[in-house]
Amino acid sequence: MDGTTFTVKDNIDIARLRTSYGSPAWRDAHPAPVHNAVCVDQLLAAGARCVGKAIADEFTYSLDGENQFLGTPRNAKAPERIPGGSSSGSAASVANGLADFSIGTDSGGSVRVPASLCGIWGMRPSLHRISEAGVLPFMPSVSTVGVLAARFEHLNAAARVMLHSGPKTGVPLRRLLLLTDALEVANKAVQDQVCSALQRISHDVGISLETIHFSKIVSEDIPLSDCNVKALRNLQSAEFESTVGNWIETAKPELGIAFSMAYGNVQRFDRIAAMDSLARCERLFEKINAYLVPGTVICFPTTPVIAPLKGTLTNLDAVLDFYDRTMTITAFSGVARLPEITAPLLTVDDCPVGLSFASGHYQDEFLLEAVGRMLN
Amino acid sequence: MDGTTFTVKDNIDIARLRTSYGSPAWRDAHPAPVHNAVCVDQLLAAGARCVGKAIADEFTYSLDGENQFLGTPRNAKAPERIPGGSSSGSAASVANGLADFSIGTDSGGSVRVPASLCGIWGMRPSLHRISEAGVLPFMPSVSTVGVLAARFEHLNAAARVMLHSGPKTGVPLRRLLLLTDALEVANKAVQDQVCSALQRISHDVGISLETIHFSKIVSEDIPLSDCNVKALRNLQSAEFESTVGNWIETAKPELGIAFSMAYGNVQRFDRIAAMDSLARCERLFEKINAYLVPGTVICFPTTPVIAPLKGTLTNLDAVLDFYDRTMTITAFSGVARLPEITAPLLTVDDCPVGLSFASGHYQDEFLLEAVGRMLN
Repeated sequence: MDGTTFTVKDNIDIARLRTSYGSPAWRDAHPAPVHNAVCVDQLLAAGARCVGKAIADEFTYSLDGENQFLGTPRNAKAPERIPGGSSSGSAASVANGLADFSIGTDSGGSVRVPASLCGIWGMRPSLHRISEAGVLPFMPSVSTVGVLAARFEHLNAAARVMLHSGPKTGVPLRRLLLLTDALEVANKAVQDQVCSALQRISHDVGISLETIHFSKIVSEDIPLSDCNVKALRNLQSAEFESTVGNWIETAKPELGIAFSMAYGNVQRFDRIAAMDSLARCERLFEKINAYLVPGTVICFPTTPVIAPLKGTLTNLDAVLDFYDRTMTITAFSGVARLPEITAPLLTVDDCPVGLSFASGHYQDEFLLEAVGRMLN
Repeated sequence: MDGTTFTVKDNIDIARLRTSYGSPAWRDAHPAPVHNAVCVDQLLAAGARCVGKAIADEFTYSLDGENQFLGTPRNAKAPERIPGGSSSGSAASVANGLADFSIGTDSGGSVRVPASLCGIWGMRPSLHRISEAGVLPFMPSVSTVGVLAARFEHLNAAARVMLHSGPKTGVPLRRLLLLTDALEVANKAVQDQVCSALQRISHDVGISLETIHFSKIVSEDIPLSDCNVKALRNLQSAEFESTVGNWIETAKPELGIAFSMAYGNVQRFDRIAAMDSLARCERLFEKINAYLVPGTVICFPTTPVIAPLKGTLTNLDAVLDFYDRTMTITAFSGVARLPEITAPLLTVDDCPVGLSFASGHYQDEFLLEAVGRMLN
């Protein structure tokens, strides 16, 4: 990777720099690390050059990219709009041309959402394929290290270094599926763009586009939103309490308004009652992965909307609409631990939206190859 | 799990108790957690009762169970010998009848080794199947939460709660393999016991015992010790530096003699040069799991020896012999992220040794069913 440059989300350690976790209070309470995170050393060993750290949302617990303490990174293609988060600075540093790629983290969509809203490439790999040593502990059963880049070749190269990929898989693309439940969550203009982009891709690769319902994939009559509401969200809340929550309760740091609102929901939820959500996550993981056999790529809009205007995610209805609809889509790969790549292919009202491609758990190399063939 | 009792290794959070991580310095530097670890809440939600915390080796970075600051838990069946570690107190609490089961953690063998040396059941599940939220960060790509129990029924019940297992898999046992390279690492008396126990089991279940070489499994002419020396050990060192190492370098705590010796090795190793070990781990994982198709169980001695006498792991030769031979065996499941169950089936010189059964990654439920049918 000689000659390439990258930035690092500020929940990932770089030696001798304090890691802020998007919170000045956290930064001031913790000494600078002595070692780089393992994923940073992998990229340095491969020849890439680190050019800086990138702002994250407070405790990386947000999808909007507005950090009350540290500012809102600029959405290069839609400057009056939010960049998306929590890897907001990662997306902005790449979209504004400050680095070839950036490493971020993704639990509920924190790589995919800012990549979609800023019009760049983003990859959330299979759960636990990339080392999380030196990455601040967050939600160990959900969080991944991911990549954002302006060009596919940089996304591909950085992902392969951190995934420590072997030679080409040789698995051909056999099925191209459109997840209709996710499509229906999106605004009409996004839906139209998704359909025409996928028709074009399907024509180019000579494989017919099939539509598929979530209930067919899991052979159960449940809505796609169950992945979020009845499974992943509770697991995330329980794990967040046992990691960041413990620190907040004992250190009593100053918290931002938006984070306080989100953390209030975490505090109110019933941990013991939530334990059956973990079983639901496991069942959904098994069923979705039994369906997504090697050679299968499933597609859907990365986010249901273009980036909201800055300062509009202030009233509860707007927040709920943005988060509930976005996470209905992002929780699909989250609960199934899938690799997902968002491609900057769509434009609505002159603003970017991503088109996502996902494949089965641990099929990261197949997905990179398939997306590379389809879109390059 | 109503009516059952358990203890918790002291690197796993229980609300309002300081977590020591096996180090008084760590304990004093960190406030008590507000929440239980998620795995503890899973067991409480299922009706089990927590009766206490159990001593761990310093920073859980040892396999012998002698903690200079906190003492050496009693090996019930061989009181003049070490209990094994790092889940030393977990094994001792169960073997001495203080609890039905205990939850521990295992990276390089920290559940399996004390279970083997204390003569009880132990399970290291597939990597990342059990939530690690509220478990002190250690080696995120290697560490698992595991279970130790005196009776198989308690091991099975506790594992299934934390694995959030569904209904029976219905996968029958089709192949029973003996990993000869691991057998050859063991003392002669252990080898004899392994062979006669497996002959008996093979006869009882009516499936012939096949011997298999490691080089056949990975279709490459490399020794079993590569799993440890050229792969897992470097990944462990790199991750340990980026987690515990950072804290030690900044907090400068008092360290025990044995831990200081081990940590010195970590400090001397070359992180950047070690990055290709991560690729080797990934290749070994893929090859071993391609071989261990559902229905396959592979067997080997859990440890090559019975528990060494207390105080004998003081000279370098004795330490190297115990660690190198033990980890040559334990790194097989470690690098391949396999579920492994050690059963208290063998006795040499009136001291216990475990016989291990492993299956492919994520085949935890099949393994529990197969071992239950074979041994109950």
